[in-house]
Amino acid sequence: MFDYIVVGAGIVGLSTAYHIKRLDPGASVLVIDKAPGPGGGDTGRSAAAFRAFFTNKANMLLSKSSIAFYRSVQEAGFDLGMRFIGYLWLVDRRAQPRVDAALRHADALGLPYERVDLGLVEERLGLRASVRGLEEAELMGLDDVGEAILVKEAGILDPDRLVEYYYEKLRSMGVEFRFGSRVVEFIVEPRRPLGIEGEPLPWQDSRVSGVRLEGGLEARARRKVIAALGAWSDQALRAIGVDPVSKPKKRQIFVVRASTGELSQILHARGFNAEGVMPFTILPRDVLIRPEPREEAFWIGLSDNLGRPFKLEEPPAPEEHYYTLGILPVLSAYMPAFEGLYPETSWAGHYDMSPDGLPVVYEPFDSDLIVACGTSGSGIMKGDAIGRVAASLALGLEEAELADGSTMPVAWLGVQGRMAERELLII
Amino acid sequence: MFDYIVVGAGIVGLSTAYHIKRLDPGASVLVIDKAPGPGGGDTGRSAAAFRAFFTNKANMLLSKSSIAFYRSVQEAGFDLGMRFIGYLWLVDRRAQPRVDAALRHADALGLPYERVDLGLVEERLGLRASVRGLEEAELMGLDDVGEAILVKEAGILDPDRLVEYYYEKLRSMGVEFRFGSRVVEFIVEPRRPLGIEGEPLPWQDSRVSGVRLEGGLEARARRKVIAALGAWSDQALRAIGVDPVSKPKKRQIFVVRASTGELSQILHARGFNAEGVMPFTILPRDVLIRPEPREEAFWIGLSDNLGRPFKLEEPPAPEEHYYTLGILPVLSAYMPAFEGLYPETSWAGHYDMSPDGLPVVYEPFDSDLIVACGTSGSGIMKGDAIGRVAASLALGLEEAELADGSTMPVAWLGVQGRMAERELLII
Repeated sequence: MFDYIVVGAGIVGLSTAYHIKRLDPGASVLVIDKAPGPGGGDTGRSAAAFRAFFTNKANMLLSKSSIAFYRSVQEAGFDLGMRFIGYLWLVDRRAQPRVDAALRHADALGLPYERVDLGLVEERLGLRASVRGLEEAELMGLDDVGEAILVKEAGILDPDRLVEYYYEKLRSMGVEFRFGSRVVEFIVEPRRPLGIEGEPLPWQDSRVSGVRLEGGLEARARRKVIAALGAWSDQALRAIGVDPVSKPKKRQIFVVRASTGELSQILHARGFNAEGVMPFTILPRDVLIRPEPREEAFWIGLSDNLGRPFKLEEPPAPEEHYYTLGILPVLSAYMPAFEGLYPETSWAGHYDMSPDGLPVVYEPFDSDLIVACGTSGSGIMKGDAIGRVAASLALGLEEAELADGSTMPVAWLGVQGRMAERELLII
Repeated sequence: MFDYIVVGAGIVGLSTAYHIKRLDPGASVLVIDKAPGPGGGDTGRSAAAFRAFFTNKANMLLSKSSIAFYRSVQEAGFDLGMRFIGYLWLVDRRAQPRVDAALRHADALGLPYERVDLGLVEERLGLRASVRGLEEAELMGLDDVGEAILVKEAGILDPDRLVEYYYEKLRSMGVEFRFGSRVVEFIVEPRRPLGIEGEPLPWQDSRVSGVRLEGGLEARARRKVIAALGAWSDQALRAIGVDPVSKPKKRQIFVVRASTGELSQILHARGFNAEGVMPFTILPRDVLIRPEPREEAFWIGLSDNLGRPFKLEEPPAPEEHYYTLGILPVLSAYMPAFEGLYPETSWAGHYDMSPDGLPVVYEPFDSDLIVACGTSGSGIMKGDAIGRVAASLALGLEEAELADGSTMPVAWLGVQGRMAERELLII
């Protein structure tokens, strides 16, 4: 019997366990995961970029405070591989309305961003801003890049190091871990069992009391069970009639080596940040280029939505044609240095998508089950704060204190009383 | 090729088709359903009660204006079986905080309700308000009924007649129907097909252009496809990566005949409404009693949540033990006249549950697909207004004009910009 059981040792589960233990040091906490170690699910498969730049106020607070926390960890000597290389949006006519709306929002909130001279981007990143007249681009209906927006409070980090940080902390705090254990069932029991047929009956006051593991073991929680299941939430929770309000969508990353002098120059482009690295770059049609300077490589991705089913794949496999037909034509139109280049390696994972792009943290039916999911591709950059919100809810608090001293009503991530501002910047 | 295709001929699909045709009389509209006729899914399995009494402003507007519309239809001579018998909440200590919050809300909005003398309820409905001291009730942890709240702008109607009303109108307007046709796939295509491998590709601008039916037939829409699939939304739309934000949950109704003089007196209780019929009554633990005076019967139900999986059953089957173990102990504790009585018949259907109890109407990814679902057990009482919102969205309007002259921003039912007030009165 534990006070708290956290199911899922990804960034959300680790961070939640950490903040529960920080707020309630005497509590006993067990963390369970099906993987052989922490961060073995989609956390470790992340592109691991971060930005304090969202249009929904809750998303903004979550990311800004988490980034502040990670920065303080790194400055205190635990290297998270954080590099403030910035995000660079290369905006075509199609994306312009969305970006304009986001920038108006940023102006209202006083969020800093810069317009970068397109000539600089052409020179340093090898951008071909004007694609009109190119036969293939015309055929594809691609537009010229009209504007380049640089957000500096943004960058990349190393997800494995972030996982290690929380994991080490948790072990030193006495949190117990059980790896390689798949949860087959969340146990629903009456608060006052009567030992009668058919329990729990619909008139009984029931709770989620624990979990049943593969192999027949059970673990029970006195206080709360936290479901931090990411992309597995939908499958695991629908069985007990709990709605995680999120669904899994496959995402893919293709690694292209900076194999030419030109590509190497692009990767180590100067003039955008103090790191001397190209920014995390968003091309028209939302093709993403994430520099990985430690490996002399680019991580390249593209989030597809309509037509890509909500589905778990175990393990998720990248699709070669997704790069060759889906990404490369756009990439090489705007960045000719990539023409004819194929990925050296690739992998896939899942986003755990909420309908509005805001994470979901709530306790359904006063059941002692805390659902924490719906990170929608930004779980790492918001992870510390999501854990604080989930831990606060687990402890019965109405507000979470975030790392930068700001506070957030727990209900903002709930299913009712939710912070309903539009999020225009899901990428 | 049609201008609009509506998939689903339940209350939401019928109402949406009707309001599209009303707003755009020249448009061609096709309605498709897998059932052999209209209302053949969960609409026809509904308990078909209504109330203009919700705490979320959007829910309130939807129900109030739909009830006003149905009343005007009935007064114009098309009998919908509407009877304003009221809703009677019998409140125990456990439900008191929720009811108090709802009543504060009602006071603020000026919604009328009455406190009814418990003595009257005991006399006319055979209520046993005080269950303390009864061995079984003590064992079950039941509380005394402390208060009775009557909402008069509420009642019951005949769902089949409501379906007929829309169906007749639609046929007279020239809307086409195709019954007995199951949609196997929503077709996703590029807006500008290039005839290249792998289309639609992620960089292409794609839309939902139509549906593929069992047997290989296809139907295509020039303007919009409306998915009014109710409990089938989750299954049908996840295949194309669209989130209906709703999930199916089984609900059951047990029909108990008013077989004794005492039960007949309860069924035809005077003093609550002009109809001389007992109100739709909510006992503690949310056991519902819906009078069906035309059949000298009571329809009895109870919505279970935690532990009841989100799952489609085709066809959904009622569970005998759900009545005997789940409902009867509560029912007979508070209404001793039901002691030892078993249902003569029963049926089951699904609620199409949204996380916050508010319907969902939106167009994902500007895809020309309009999702209209998430009725959460109140599809009939909100059906006309949901159809107006969905039709307005299909026509590109930002506001829907409701039957009582009020207007509602379409975004209130969307996934972003959603009306996020708490709904305290889901039963």
